[in-house]
Amino acid sequence: MVPVLARLFPPVFEGVFHLQQEILIEAISETETQPPHLPGQREGIEEIVSHVAVAADRKTVGCEDLAEARAETGLGIVTEAIDVETFDLVEQHADCVQIGARNMQNFSLLRRAGRSRKPVLLKRGMSSTLEEFLMAAEYILAEGNYNVILCERGVRTFADHTRNTLDLSVVPAVQSLSHLPIIVDPSHGTGKRNMVLPLARAAAAVGADGLMIEVHHQPDKALSDGAQSMYPDQFVELMDEIAQIAGAVHRSLPRGITVAEPAPAARV
Amino acid sequence: MVPVLARLFPPVFEGVFHLQQEILIEAISETETQPPHLPGQREGIEEIVSHVAVAADRKTVGCEDLAEARAETGLGIVTEAIDVETFDLVEQHADCVQIGARNMQNFSLLRRAGRSRKPVLLKRGMSSTLEEFLMAAEYILAEGNYNVILCERGVRTFADHTRNTLDLSVVPAVQSLSHLPIIVDPSHGTGKRNMVLPLARAAAAVGADGLMIEVHHQPDKALSDGAQSMYPDQFVELMDEIAQIAGAVHRSLPRGITVAEPAPAARV
Amino acid sequence: MVPVLARLFPPVFEGVFHLQQEILIEAISETETQPPHLPGQREGIEEIVSHVAVAADRKTVGCEDLAEARAETGLGIVTEAIDVETFDLVEQHADCVQIGARNMQNFSLLRRAGRSRKPVLLKRGMSSTLEEFLMAAEYILAEGNYNVILCERGVRTFADHTRNTLDLSVVPAVQSLSHLPIIVDPSHGTGKRNMVLPLARAAAAVGADGLMIEVHHQPDKALSDGAQSMYPDQFVELMDEIAQIAGAVHRSLPRGITVAEPAPAARV
Amino acid sequence: MVPVLARLFPPVFEGVFHLQQEILIEAISETETQPPHLPGQREGIEEIVSHVAVAADRKTVGCEDLAEARAETGLGIVTEAIDVETFDLVEQHADCVQIGARNMQNFSLLRRAGRSRKPVLLKRGMSSTLEEFLMAAEYILAEGNYNVILCERGVRTFADHTRNTLDLSVVPAVQSLSHLPIIVDPSHGTGKRNMVLPLARAAAAVGADGLMIEVHHQPDKALSDGAQSMYPDQFVELMDEIAQIAGAVHRSLPRGITVAEPAPAARV
Repeated sequence: MVPVLARLFPPVFEGVFHLQQEILIEAISETETQPPHLPGQREGIEEIVSHVAVAADRKTVGCEDLAEARAETGLGIVTEAIDVETFDLVEQHADCVQIGARNMQNFSLLRRAGRSRKPVLLKRGMSSTLEEFLMAAEYILAEGNYNVILCERGVRTFADHTRNTLDLSVVPAVQSLSHLPIIVDPSHGTGKRNMVLPLARAAAAVGADGLMIEVHHQPDKALSDGAQSMYPDQFVELMDEIAQIAGAVHRSLPRGITVAEPAPAARV
Repeated sequence: MVPVLARLFPPVFEGVFHLQQEILIEAISETETQPPHLPGQREGIEEIVSHVAVAADRKTVGCEDLAEARAETGLGIVTEAIDVETFDLVEQHADCVQIGARNMQNFSLLRRAGRSRKPVLLKRGMSSTLEEFLMAAEYILAEGNYNVILCERGVRTFADHTRNTLDLSVVPAVQSLSHLPIIVDPSHGTGKRNMVLPLARAAAAVGADGLMIEVHHQPDKALSDGAQSMYPDQFVELMDEIAQIAGAVHRSLPRGITVAEPAPAARV
Repeated sequence: MVPVLARLFPPVFEGVFHLQQEILIEAISETETQPPHLPGQREGIEEIVSHVAVAADRKTVGCEDLAEARAETGLGIVTEAIDVETFDLVEQHADCVQIGARNMQNFSLLRRAGRSRKPVLLKRGMSSTLEEFLMAAEYILAEGNYNVILCERGVRTFADHTRNTLDLSVVPAVQSLSHLPIIVDPSHGTGKRNMVLPLARAAAAVGADGLMIEVHHQPDKALSDGAQSMYPDQFVELMDEIAQIAGAVHRSLPRGITVAEPAPAARV
Repeated sequence: MVPVLARLFPPVFEGVFHLQQEILIEAISETETQPPHLPGQREGIEEIVSHVAVAADRKTVGCEDLAEARAETGLGIVTEAIDVETFDLVEQHADCVQIGARNMQNFSLLRRAGRSRKPVLLKRGMSSTLEEFLMAAEYILAEGNYNVILCERGVRTFADHTRNTLDLSVVPAVQSLSHLPIIVDPSHGTGKRNMVLPLARAAAAVGADGLMIEVHHQPDKALSDGAQSMYPDQFVELMDEIAQIAGAVHRSLPRGITVAEPAPAARV
């Protein structure tokens, strides 16, 4: 029985990618007690949580959880690889390997991802230009892995009403320069639950090839990112709207997308 | 005969404002020959062009053009007031007075606008925080003019693939803090024609109360802002999409909005 | 008897300008009770305080104070003109007219300053590029006033350890493109007293033509900007260091600079 | 015989660190022909050049060069470790291991550096806050390596007159929160040769514990960073000025610092 819940949910629009008709899921083990103490700042903690989740170099609990989650839900798994050393383990268990914003110019990691057979989700760096973003992807492509998904997740500016400033203009900019699909993460891009919904709609309207949204049935109890996580009910409603918006901009959602029910154990 | 064409076109969503069901238009006199020489830079020229257009302190050609344009098309006029001295003239001829981004903290101008009976369109400053934006509006409200429309038009960041970075998250942020309507200007917000369309869609989806879009039948010959102006055909198509997106996010376009035909003379 | 104290103190390096050997002073009336209530945010209050200080459109108390301060101390006065309407009054009483960062692109105000015979201190806008900064100065020069002093006072970035990010590189950049002197304001540029001293030294070393530093004998009681004001003792020490640094970079302080004693009344 | 020249030159002020009285040097092999073709962008090339220079994972030519350079000149060597895999090799040959700006949040690399016995030079990330900068250092300290030198090298802003905006205010900010020394790199911080000199002076005046400056006897032929490299004559002059500025701000240069003569072969 798997004490996890969907955290990450990119509906990929039809015709985009071999991930289509598949719902990706990043699982965070809620049974994990506190992350081990490390000197730390929030960013550090976040990194550790991910680390624990993928079972990394210490124990394989996280990866087992992921495997169990996939088996129970039939959902695909996307989780982050944070270094070359633990890449093998992540690659083995994930259906899609994520490279985080802080690692967008970690060239060794990019090259390792390029030698993987799994699709790679590459997040834009916090102050990355469009050119740097595309060049980071080139490092992966150059090694032979052409399954790269780009992800806009907000850039750093003076503005203080959101955690980052979501730069939706990068979506059409990427689409005019590259064949790579680009999705948007409004959860990290805003850091606030009440902004995720409107910016998810906007991302669909701007032509994003997918969305990546944090969903949690008990955001207040989430080990990380709770403040920006959407409730499942909100998510279901959003999917309806997205389908209409996609239609308005001449895109369509892949058939058969269904919202994953959280595993029963997660409701406890 | 009026040698002008619509430049600015905010469809205001139903139920928002007394401007509803009215299409605003800013006119630029295309017959104006070169603006008078002044020490340079694009920003300077832009300012001069606006200045000439509203006939400002030199001649009243511009304002006559505006009056004629309104008479011929039945459209409302929104044009920019750039200083207190010429405010009276602008106020007399405009249906809505715009305060530009560079003047967002020009407190004297804000107070003068607050004593006007015309609605005021207040553009966000290029590095303005949300708080500063709302406080600038307060300067107008404090003088008794409650008809203020806010406008997001992009902020200044390191990103170089657009002229500014359109910060759509400010729309829900304003809506949660203020009763004032907020519209979006994707033309100045991106500075590139091929990005106006997708970001206009995104602005509608994020819940903006209106849009402000540059349209020109011959963008290459526009005295200013041609590179970011949309063709009329594109605009008509956009309006269709906007209506659908508005429906998806539980808004509706005011009935009776029609795309203004450019005055025949403008086609010459 | 004048209840004011020096707030602003630019030692201008020798050979730079007709202001040399003169110490400028902006006076804030400490006897002024609370500024009149206005809807407002700190920025608003700051503006009002300045407004009151220069006596602006309401009463001429501020300007009388300034006149008295000049008579008692023999110091020059630099104070801010915030709009065209009150420019005459400021011009009449000030030895140098300041245009604030928020007005850097207030073209009407710039043109009015260009028709003045008083030197103009032009502060860089909060997100102004070098080109925009120099072009703003051109608006003043174009009207015939060649006595323009530029002032770097920090720009807006993501960094949160200072109020603004002081961009000292703009000093050599200006000096390679323009004949205009450029001074640095580390008080507004950092917003924190303990940073003013080191950044004032840095500004001298980078080759700035002057400094503009807030000094207050009782910063905790200052109506505005207290948190970034230096104590007079610190200022005296800084002047010593500046002289040495100026020597190291082949500049010299104008002879005869002395630190102004605050008027006795101000000590009460 | 080694055809290299000093590239990196931090005079560390007295009393700061065990590196004192030692001049560090990063060597770039000028005999290296073109770097191997990789999909490109400048950043990528820069990274490759460094990679080649340290002999990385392909051949050990670079490291041999470094060893020879140290033997001939008696200078210390600081060079960049770009990943965990090649860290051993870099550690073995360098006197100080650099972590670049793009790797500031590469936590695996930071932890590996923390297990090294060599001092670590940690560069600030391009959009890193002060807190993130100090926390990155904590990752190294937490593993037991207390010899960490921080380095400000410019942050990313809207300003376009320099490649980055050098944020000198971070120097006193770090010094008030941490015991770690902080040096400044005006070469990368500005990207322009004519700005390196004034900003190096400013960095000394602001209280930096050291400088890191690119020097090259033939900048036009440098494989990388030539445009921001100083001529040796300029460097000698700068050192004189720095000594005076250091004195003015109550710091002193370590005795015995001498400018390294380039190896004779490098002059060919």
